[in-house]
Amino acid sequence: MKKNKIFTRAQIQNFIEINSNKKIVVVQGLGFVGAVMSLVVCNSDEDEYAVIGVDLESNKHVIESINSGVFPIEASDPKIKEYFDNAIKKRNFIASYDSEAYKFADTIIVDINLDVQKLSNQNRELQSFNVDLNPFRSAIRTIGKNCKENALILVETTVPPGTCIKVVKPIIFEELRKRKLDTSKITIGHSYERVMPGPNYIDSIKNFFRVYSGIDKKSADKTENFLRSIISTKKYPLTRLGNTNATEIAKVLENSYRAMNIAFAVEWSRFAEESSVNLYEVIDAIRMRPTHSNLMYPGIGVGGYCLTKDPLLASWARINHFDGSENLDQSETGVKINDKMPIYAFEYMKRVFKIKNLDRKKILLLGVSYRSDVGDTRYSPVEPFYLKCLSEGAVIETNDPYVSYWEELDLNVSKDLSKQLKNNWDIIVFSTAHKEFNSPDSIKDLSKIKGVMFFDPLGVLCEKDIKKLNKNNQVKVLGRGDI
Amino acid sequence: MKKNKIFTRAQIQNFIEINSNKKIVVVQGLGFVGAVMSLVVCNSDEDEYAVIGVDLESNKHVIESINSGVFPIEASDPKIKEYFDNAIKKRNFIASYDSEAYKFADTIIVDINLDVQKLSNQNRELQSFNVDLNPFRSAIRTIGKNCKENALILVETTVPPGTCIKVVKPIIFEELRKRKLDTSKITIGHSYERVMPGPNYIDSIKNFFRVYSGIDKKSADKTENFLRSIISTKKYPLTRLGNTNATEIAKVLENSYRAMNIAFAVEWSRFAEESSVNLYEVIDAIRMRPTHSNLMYPGIGVGGYCLTKDPLLASWARINHFDGSENLDQSETGVKINDKMPIYAFEYMKRVFKIKNLDRKKILLLGVSYRSDVGDTRYSPVEPFYLKCLSEGAVIETNDPYVSYWEELDLNVSKDLSKQLKNNWDIIVFSTAHKEFNSPDSIKDLSKIKGVMFFDPLGVLCEKDIKKLNKNNQVKVLGRGDI
Repeated sequence: MKKNKIFTRAQIQNFIEINSNKKIVVVQGLGFVGAVMSLVVCNSDEDEYAVIGVDLESNKHVIESINSGVFPIEASDPKIKEYFDNAIKKRNFIASYDSEAYKFADTIIVDINLDVQKLSNQNRELQSFNVDLNPFRSAIRTIGKNCKENALILVETTVPPGTCIKVVKPIIFEELRKRKLDTSKITIGHSYERVMPGPNYIDSIKNFFRVYSGIDKKSADKTENFLRSIISTKKYPLTRLGNTNATEIAKVLENSYRAMNIAFAVEWSRFAEESSVNLYEVIDAIRMRPTHSNLMYPGIGVGGYCLTKDPLLASWARINHFDGSENLDQSETGVKINDKMPIYAFEYMKRVFKIKNLDRKKILLLGVSYRSDVGDTRYSPVEPFYLKCLSEGAVIETNDPYVSYWEELDLNVSKDLSKQLKNNWDIIVFSTAHKEFNSPDSIKDLSKIKGVMFFDPLGVLCEKDIKKLNKNNQVKVLGRGDI
Repeated sequence: MKKNKIFTRAQIQNFIEINSNKKIVVVQGLGFVGAVMSLVVCNSDEDEYAVIGVDLESNKHVIESINSGVFPIEASDPKIKEYFDNAIKKRNFIASYDSEAYKFADTIIVDINLDVQKLSNQNRELQSFNVDLNPFRSAIRTIGKNCKENALILVETTVPPGTCIKVVKPIIFEELRKRKLDTSKITIGHSYERVMPGPNYIDSIKNFFRVYSGIDKKSADKTENFLRSIISTKKYPLTRLGNTNATEIAKVLENSYRAMNIAFAVEWSRFAEESSVNLYEVIDAIRMRPTHSNLMYPGIGVGGYCLTKDPLLASWARINHFDGSENLDQSETGVKINDKMPIYAFEYMKRVFKIKNLDRKKILLLGVSYRSDVGDTRYSPVEPFYLKCLSEGAVIETNDPYVSYWEELDLNVSKDLSKQLKNNWDIIVFSTAHKEFNSPDSIKDLSKIKGVMFFDPLGVLCEKDIKKLNKNNQVKVLGRGDI
């Protein structure tokens, strides 16, 4: 049965025929971006597209899942189900690992990952890092070997700046020439997504600002037309930049800025602790100024796919793609500081509760996702925090309303807090700021238990909650200087 | 005559009698903050205060100026003149260097400077820095030797966090005890100003948010009452923080955040230049996101009294006042990067215009102030830029609509651009983003000249202006990657 779920060449042919009145879009990469981008394209206002999602054979389970009518990503956004069901009904979405698909594509969207290899020591201090472009290169080459000569190749992957010009274009042109095709007809655009898995997953693509560019004017024009057909550009106008370097830089600059701003709060939260100052109160007071509204709180650390690597991608590109005079020191520093945050949170917890060793301590982690109200555990800072506790011999359970299975650690995650609260805990950690954890109901349940150390490294608890929990327990908040 | 302008003890006595129905406020320090703070207090809604501004004998000229009816600071805000004239008319404002004044004060506002001594090499690389608290200590001691036991001492000076508790309070208490006075009656508050010399100078005190605290509840309450009487707190609510460390940290955190954000743009502007990207375009595109609205442009450098030192004050305090584990590395780095910006701008200018040496080049600097539309040359980045040009033998003139005399360099500054444009220039630099320089009239005048190299390190020129000037000249903009 399962085998049937992978579409064969004949089935792709059949799909093309069914959708003969539609333009074919192939989305390369069916991860957090590509899978949902596919849904948005399938549901364009003019209903003009049919989508073949292509991924590697090693991601067979994703392909199978889509073809058997189950969307492969757990998401709280109800539009995901709506868009997916609609696509299934319209029969304009299939997935495949057959690169034959590219042959039919009018537009190819590149949504594959491009990772940074980080080498860190056990305290999460970054020792060195590298960017291996080879997997990306070979994905692009597959496109070049198969695509029509007049296709639009739209790169959405976060790449080291310079990649469209220095990597994508030469490979595509080389392959077209090998096939004796006209390189003047191909168009290559770059436009980065600002996808946010969570309650507004679809809208983070469909209803949000976009920046785009092309390797030449024709490419930029075609990219613009395509984006106009799938995004609400009236409400969220597009911005065209001068060249692909500019849009590539824009993406990593955005994320570096955010990473640096988080790192900034880290340093000051230490200072606040040392000087008995509640940093949350300070930051709230400053945020009243419009010029300072983007100040961030400290926390348990930074996670997710982007902020943990994009500044490094940029820094790498400056040296390797442009012979830059030096690396992007300040941006790299942001990543380095953020990487160490979970370890600091761990040590802070032990210090404020005066615990020498966590051996056999029973710990409940509330939240494993890297971000509030979202089920996404990629590079979650809760992971190193969990592993640190584990390494000292703690007995740990986890709870997350948005995650049932913690892929990176191969662990099941409970959603049943009431049941878990019947056990005896030494420490309960607010490790993700999901709204469920500081809801009145949860606080009520949590305040019933006694003799527990509550650790809140994210400032999810308000003054009132802290008072309630403090009655029969001890509450400590990172960055509040209440040691 | 002049001698008369310094109020004698008898005259102070007379002033107190004239204002016997008013509460006496002494403002210590008559610089950019204190002088204008005095005006705001003199013009409180209930007209309940008379102000004696006190400064050191070495600042006699400021005292004389006030007492002879001339406000000592050039300011574009028309309210300055209105408020000052009003105070003169009401006879509720005098200045003096006689510390006798403190004896009459119900409230003493500390607005003196507290400097950081920076040691940098000729490339403006910060080698080391120190904070000498002694001048501040002795100013506080003068208050302690003279003040009433129930006075409110309100510290507004930007201090290393911890100073109110660790420096101000012990000195005041010591001096009160020496005079056999009751230390339980004195109140000490801290509230930092967010003064912005310029067109909204008065409003930056009177109509803006304030954060405050006190060394105890009574102090915080009295501080609150005082602030309510001079600031429009209905529209700009006050925020009370838990202790004086918190408000002291808030101030330097605010400025460190801003300094770091500027430094961030520096690194990326280099990268943009290397990769032929227009960073202004990129930043505009990103700023559409509310989470990124505080992104800054690159520039010629950071100036002014605060951003160039406050991160260092904070870092110093962390080590020296709280035995902190380490310095505020990221914040210090911000200062270091910003310090070097004028040198970079200088070198960039030579590089893009392919000039080996500026010997005998005729250079016109448009703007010497550190900030647009403001006459304030304190720590202006134009200063090291000027000195660099000078050191290579350039012949330099300056123009600034807001500055007639450049105090730091002892130079007269012209306001007559039309006249200056009759000379032959090799290079004209947009060194401050005053609105007068890119006004239609100025652009018209500037585009008439020929064969000049225009250097715009601040992005003050729009696309259209650049086109106009480029016709007969060469325009280069820092951070636009147009090398």
